[in-house]
Amino acid sequence: MKKIRAAVIGYGNIGKYVMESLIDAPDFEITGVVRRDATNVPAELKGFEVVNSISQLKNTDVALLCTPTRSVEKFAKECLALGINTVDSYDIHGGIVDLRHSLNDVAKQHNAVSIVSAGWDPGSDSVVRTLMEAMAPKGITYTNFGPGMSMGHTVAVKAIEGVKAALSMTIPTGTGVHRRMVYIELNDGYDFDQVAKAIQSDDYFVHDETHVFRVENVEALKDMGHGVLMERKGVSGNTQNQLFRFDMRINNPALTAQVMVGCARAAVKQKPGAYTLIEIPVVDLLPGDREKWIKKLV
Amino acid sequence: MKKIRAAVIGYGNIGKYVMESLIDAPDFEITGVVRRDATNVPAELKGFEVVNSISQLKNTDVALLCTPTRSVEKFAKECLALGINTVDSYDIHGGIVDLRHSLNDVAKQHNAVSIVSAGWDPGSDSVVRTLMEAMAPKGITYTNFGPGMSMGHTVAVKAIEGVKAALSMTIPTGTGVHRRMVYIELNDGYDFDQVAKAIQSDDYFVHDETHVFRVENVEALKDMGHGVLMERKGVSGNTQNQLFRFDMRINNPALTAQVMVGCARAAVKQKPGAYTLIEIPVVDLLPGDREKWIKKLV
Repeated sequence: MKKIRAAVIGYGNIGKYVMESLIDAPDFEITGVVRRDATNVPAELKGFEVVNSISQLKNTDVALLCTPTRSVEKFAKECLALGINTVDSYDIHGGIVDLRHSLNDVAKQHNAVSIVSAGWDPGSDSVVRTLMEAMAPKGITYTNFGPGMSMGHTVAVKAIEGVKAALSMTIPTGTGVHRRMVYIELNDGYDFDQVAKAIQSDDYFVHDETHVFRVENVEALKDMGHGVLMERKGVSGNTQNQLFRFDMRINNPALTAQVMVGCARAAVKQKPGAYTLIEIPVVDLLPGDREKWIKKLV
Repeated sequence: MKKIRAAVIGYGNIGKYVMESLIDAPDFEITGVVRRDATNVPAELKGFEVVNSISQLKNTDVALLCTPTRSVEKFAKECLALGINTVDSYDIHGGIVDLRHSLNDVAKQHNAVSIVSAGWDPGSDSVVRTLMEAMAPKGITYTNFGPGMSMGHTVAVKAIEGVKAALSMTIPTGTGVHRRMVYIELNDGYDFDQVAKAIQSDDYFVHDETHVFRVENVEALKDMGHGVLMERKGVSGNTQNQLFRFDMRINNPALTAQVMVGCARAAVKQKPGAYTLIEIPVVDLLPGDREKWIKKLV
């Protein structure tokens, strides 16, 4: 079997887990890792090419973009222009339709495929939400996140004056409503109550019940566990009270990485263009012979 | 918007619910219902064509096969040969690969699409099982059915001598193991203990914990509620203990019917051939503009 040649762009948290998933997958080989500083090669990357630019790697079929979400479009376009398929976990819900449009044009122009927002939410959760909608066309779906660390909210807290270090936890209180539990270390000379008030009135927090706590050491509180509970109560045909729940408790970056690797596999099977996960047959996420999976999973 | 012209073949339990779902859907019109006895027209079908053969209906785009599972192949081939797409809820897991093969050839020959095993298990559950496998490639998935009535097991009990009426309930006891609770009415002159022993040693029951009870009236026990709990504990990359659960409590024929209607919609969007549900993008199950759903569900 010819292996899929994959490159990893960006080597932060997600990039590390993507490398683990690629190494573990039976059908991939790694062409290299792209980092801003290519001289920074940690021990676990010693056996791999580490370069500054995707153009320095040979015969890459697909690039997994593990950059900050706001850089995804730039790196995706660079890869697609070289005819290299891309997968990203772009996670700003309001921007997905535009990103898909913009990458769709570039992908088609260069005969390549781009799978956007291929993490767990947006991503695998989107597939379950779509399936629930199809199973009961009338009704309400609630997506409850957590308990787990919110990257976006944590970054927002860190930007507030007086905050030295921060952690924002998302706590589900049901029906898609969330409480924010914010833990901060304070810089010298700042008043805790004033900083707490600034956090609570920030755009990221002003609509939610937000509690702020001062702690000695934020690092000691961090774990990467996360979860989601999606619930739909709806109507199939004329039949009321159809009940659906999808619940998961997972390591956040590990699941994001695994979904991205499945989509890297799916990317080489699609026609040129940009796709979200709900536009791709789920069996394409799995390696090898389709019929084997039909026998096992259908 | 041009509506999809759908025919319903077979008007038993599933056929009735399929009619309800089609009537409720915004994008379908019904060309008619095919029954063995076309003179048997219940009140709710008065406004529709009721005929003996699909060939008597005009311009049907897709036929929903609501016949017994063992007649699916015959009716599907008849429709496909006329260039009419088909959807069925064929539910013998061991026969799905062969059915797909056989219908794939006929479908391609006549430029049509066939979606096989498009109920909830096999069907929508298969999509969730596939997604779970992709999210954590190493691990075990357990599918726990019930509590709910098993059609197949109920038919098996009815075939045993001395049984006048029967109901077999499937009770999940965890890790994919099931208890069978069998309720029977006895014909005169038969010994309950002997009949119970015959049931317990039947192929359908011999591997499961089976309890048999004699009741006055089986009809009084029947409800069409059913459920499933799918659980996977697995590994994403090198990360252990990723936990996933999908749980639903539903009216069984109503959900089967709704999934079939979603697939009837998907059928007109695929290239000629036969497909299982895991080979179809989930967004194709939904009506109207794809981008609207991406905005809402991704």
